[in-house]
Amino acid sequence: MAKNVHTQATQRTGSPDGSRSKRPEILTTAIEHFGRDGYEYTKWADIAHDVGLGSTALYHYFESKLHCLFEIHAEALQAERERFERLTADGGDFGPALVRLLNGLFDLSDLDVLRNRVLVAEEGVIAVPRKSPREEEARRVARARMRDIEFAWAAFLTRGMEQGAIPEADPRLLTHAILGLYKSVWHWYRPGGGLSLDDIREFFVGRCLAVAGYLQPASVPAGRKARTTRRAA
Amino acid sequence: MAKNVHTQATQRTGSPDGSRSKRPEILTTAIEHFGRDGYEYTKWADIAHDVGLGSTALYHYFESKLHCLFEIHAEALQAERERFERLTADGGDFGPALVRLLNGLFDLSDLDVLRNRVLVAEEGVIAVPRKSPREEEARRVARARMRDIEFAWAAFLTRGMEQGAIPEADPRLLTHAILGLYKSVWHWYRPGGGLSLDDIREFFVGRCLAVAGYLQPASVPAGRKARTTRRAA
Repeated sequence: MAKNVHTQATQRTGSPDGSRSKRPEILTTAIEHFGRDGYEYTKWADIAHDVGLGSTALYHYFESKLHCLFEIHAEALQAERERFERLTADGGDFGPALVRLLNGLFDLSDLDVLRNRVLVAEEGVIAVPRKSPREEEARRVARARMRDIEFAWAAFLTRGMEQGAIPEADPRLLTHAILGLYKSVWHWYRPGGGLSLDDIREFFVGRCLAVAGYLQPASVPAGRKARTTRRAA
Repeated sequence: MAKNVHTQATQRTGSPDGSRSKRPEILTTAIEHFGRDGYEYTKWADIAHDVGLGSTALYHYFESKLHCLFEIHAEALQAERERFERLTADGGDFGPALVRLLNGLFDLSDLDVLRNRVLVAEEGVIAVPRKSPREEEARRVARARMRDIEFAWAAFLTRGMEQGAIPEADPRLLTHAILGLYKSVWHWYRPGGGLSLDDIREFFVGRCLAVAGYLQPASVPAGRKARTTRRAA
């Protein structure tokens, strides 16, 4: 799995360092440290040690722990954006596309889950400008990609409203709500616990659809005490 | 507003330092710094400077920036727990109680909003044990209160399922989903922007009810293109 991520990361970034670049390995190691121990509690020197680099060589790739974190954000959001495009490309009926998209968001390796945990735990840092040019450039790329994803979601949801598949609503607020509910999973979910990713997917896809106002029959299995569509005063 | 918060904090903690304790002022100042600049980017010395204390005097109250953060969590969660009790105390019909509770969660001062932003941005630190006894004690208190709130929510939602007001579901997952959606607001909402807290409340209370499977008529104003109860394949 880790090897697969390395390959993807190299292809994505088109690193000028060539095929022997340590960049993917550093990013993977950093995700493992940040995801397991927390960003705050991870020492940059420990990552250098794990990948077998001195501080000068490491500096060639990343100026600081924060710079590395911004690059993790930027790469993850790039992958997220590409997945969004792939899953919504056919331009057909909104409803099935929404269901496909939400299900696709849970197609994750253990390392992806760990990366998502890092992203949500450290999302706030993206908002604060940095003085270092390298840090600031990486931060701006990450922030632009995040906004790009939010914009793509809002446009997609607007299409659903236009088709009458979901109720009219502020598309930006609805984007915040759906992505907020999705992202909230990574604050507490740990692989290997009592719940599989499929359990999580089944529960949360249904709830995201409910937030959008698009209710599938599949989200209301037979035998429940109350119908999901129940209305009360 | 700040003065009001001071009073509440003193009453809550019953500080042994007496009425001239600087503790509430330090907490408020820390919330303002953490909420505005981010925890990571706030210097502990700046908080000391703002409240007019030297490092020795400050140490009397909090051992470190992290210790202070844990205490902010602990106090906020205590207040949250008390509010939960107050809003669900009457033990009547589940539906109206859920609506009242969710609406109550948005009764917030600007400082409360800032505090919520700190809580969600730094929620992850609560999970990692500390070596310092003072830090660790505060961390454990905060973590226990967070679990206590989640347990209270799960019990409350179970009551709703028992009454047939919402569909049967895993109460812990449903708690995660509703609280996750609620908390997600504080990752991006800023007072004084284009949206008032009432706008946010109106939108998010309805979506939290949808997640629970409890749909009010009020959440579907007339004139929308599609009904919220629409079902599609």
